[in-house]
Amino acid sequence: MSAVSGLLRDRRLTRLLEPVEAGMQQMRSCLSSQLASDHAAVAEMTEHLGRFSGKQLRAALVLLSAHAAGNEHPELPQVASVIEMIHLATLVHDDVLDGAEVRRRVACVHQRWDNQVAILLGDLLYARAFHLSTTLASPMVSEVLSRATQRICEGEIIQAGSRRAFEMDVEQYEFIAAAKTATLYRAACQLGTAYPVADNPRQVQAMARFGEEVGLAFQIVDDVLDLVGEQEAVGKSVGNDVEDGKVTLPVLATYASADESVRAAIRAAYGDANVGDRRAALRSACDLQAGLDRAMERARDLVAQANTRLECLDEGPSKEALSMLGDFVLERKW
Amino acid sequence: MSAVSGLLRDRRLTRLLEPVEAGMQQMRSCLSSQLASDHAAVAEMTEHLGRFSGKQLRAALVLLSAHAAGNEHPELPQVASVIEMIHLATLVHDDVLDGAEVRRRVACVHQRWDNQVAILLGDLLYARAFHLSTTLASPMVSEVLSRATQRICEGEIIQAGSRRAFEMDVEQYEFIAAAKTATLYRAACQLGTAYPVADNPRQVQAMARFGEEVGLAFQIVDDVLDLVGEQEAVGKSVGNDVEDGKVTLPVLATYASADESVRAAIRAAYGDANVGDRRAALRSACDLQAGLDRAMERARDLVAQANTRLECLDEGPSKEALSMLGDFVLERKW
Repeated sequence: MSAVSGLLRDRRLTRLLEPVEAGMQQMRSCLSSQLASDHAAVAEMTEHLGRFSGKQLRAALVLLSAHAAGNEHPELPQVASVIEMIHLATLVHDDVLDGAEVRRRVACVHQRWDNQVAILLGDLLYARAFHLSTTLASPMVSEVLSRATQRICEGEIIQAGSRRAFEMDVEQYEFIAAAKTATLYRAACQLGTAYPVADNPRQVQAMARFGEEVGLAFQIVDDVLDLVGEQEAVGKSVGNDVEDGKVTLPVLATYASADESVRAAIRAAYGDANVGDRRAALRSACDLQAGLDRAMERARDLVAQANTRLECLDEGPSKEALSMLGDFVLERKW
Repeated sequence: MSAVSGLLRDRRLTRLLEPVEAGMQQMRSCLSSQLASDHAAVAEMTEHLGRFSGKQLRAALVLLSAHAAGNEHPELPQVASVIEMIHLATLVHDDVLDGAEVRRRVACVHQRWDNQVAILLGDLLYARAFHLSTTLASPMVSEVLSRATQRICEGEIIQAGSRRAFEMDVEQYEFIAAAKTATLYRAACQLGTAYPVADNPRQVQAMARFGEEVGLAFQIVDDVLDLVGEQEAVGKSVGNDVEDGKVTLPVLATYASADESVRAAIRAAYGDANVGDRRAALRSACDLQAGLDRAMERARDLVAQANTRLECLDEGPSKEALSMLGDFVLERKW
């Protein structure tokens, strides 16, 4: 990624976060204090995690939803940091799962230390997140996020059982993608709108759906980037899905409309023992373009659908930021 | 293990659990329902975990402490099952960590499926445990157990950073052993006595200490069994500690009083690349007996100390069972 596009990318995200910048600062300072430890061996690792700061879109969704719904509860930055901690825990464990070598240009935990430590560190993050949630005034966060974490894990387990399932239907793909990713987007919007008490259930429901749809779109774009993005721009390893046998929407669509010889070549790219760079092999085995277009079309439809949910909100800068967030998700290269 | 010793072992444990047998049944049925899933791929794995039933000593401690303290809260079996679920989650992740091949004569999750699934399944168990705890009347369980889980993870991370640390002092060993194991024993006794409201803080404190001391004794005995036990009797892989570079109390004590040639042989047993069975190599490298005796002496002292804590309880069958539990921990071969 060039320095210029880096600046552009930051500027766009910064503008999205403007209405809640003060809350984001509080969220980040809460997150840092959660990543501290009295034990040097632990602190070295948890503080390393602080460098995986990422886009923090889930935290932003908590705060933007809250602001747009007129919710000013003082614990919202903590709620946002709990969600980011759970997200961070899933990333740490995903990195073990995926064998991803680079995450946001910082060495992955399991590369810098080892798998054992990465598993324990993820567990520690989950435990700290749940502990922080138990210190909040309402049990809503503990309840929603322990349920959300179950859905994420179930989705990932089902995904692990669906490796190289080229005949999977789109519903099954979306079930998995939504469970993995849309879950925390939904929870973020739901908690931002409803915390600590849901006094407008219709609005909470609409915002939960907004989160679910934007989250699913985000995952579809992620799957597209894993196939066609460049590691330097995306900021993490690419091609992991092919490597791990994950058949994502562009590949499913391509496979469904391919003839048997192309199908065999796709299967070989995913499965033959002697293939080195599986993503490159897949890209030579077939023309992915129509499948990629179809996936992006689905992501665009989801964002359009999501944006209709925002009718439940009053006009204002946070509603506007939320309505731009879907486009940011669609157009992002990282 | 012969069939006869199996029967003896079960009879002794059954007698210990007699005063709380009804609660243990409720705990087991709660645990089974928590291990169910609507998703076939998930259910197959979680139900497999139901076979790792183990001794369920942590659940027993919740119920015996409660009964002995006159606490009859109807949610106690659920509290006990939450603790067993967290314990199960740590076992599933430990099995990935340790490369243990056999756990309680049932194939480990990571052998039957793979590491990815074992990590996810452990995460799912943690999430279900926390979710169940959020459904209880008092937030005490969520609060105590999310804190306890942090201590367990920190202890394991520090342990991972102390591999082959032959000059570690005994305090450091006990810090790690207590964090890993005594934590849930302490939490079990604390919650059994205090749930849902601690109205006798002195008694709760005494019972928490009882749990801490018995738990540390349990871990010391575990470390002894890992060095001298036979897989068939212990019911799980043995020799893992040497394999993983964990320097446990018997080895520390042996190393401290050994001359340099024996020390070098011990280090070689743990570290040389060409050693096959590291435990066998360690046992030929030195005479572990004095170190084993010293470890068992420490475990006995801890149990004796723990038993003095029981003065806070009224006489009765549960107090008697608790006072026998330490001896069971010391004398167990599995």
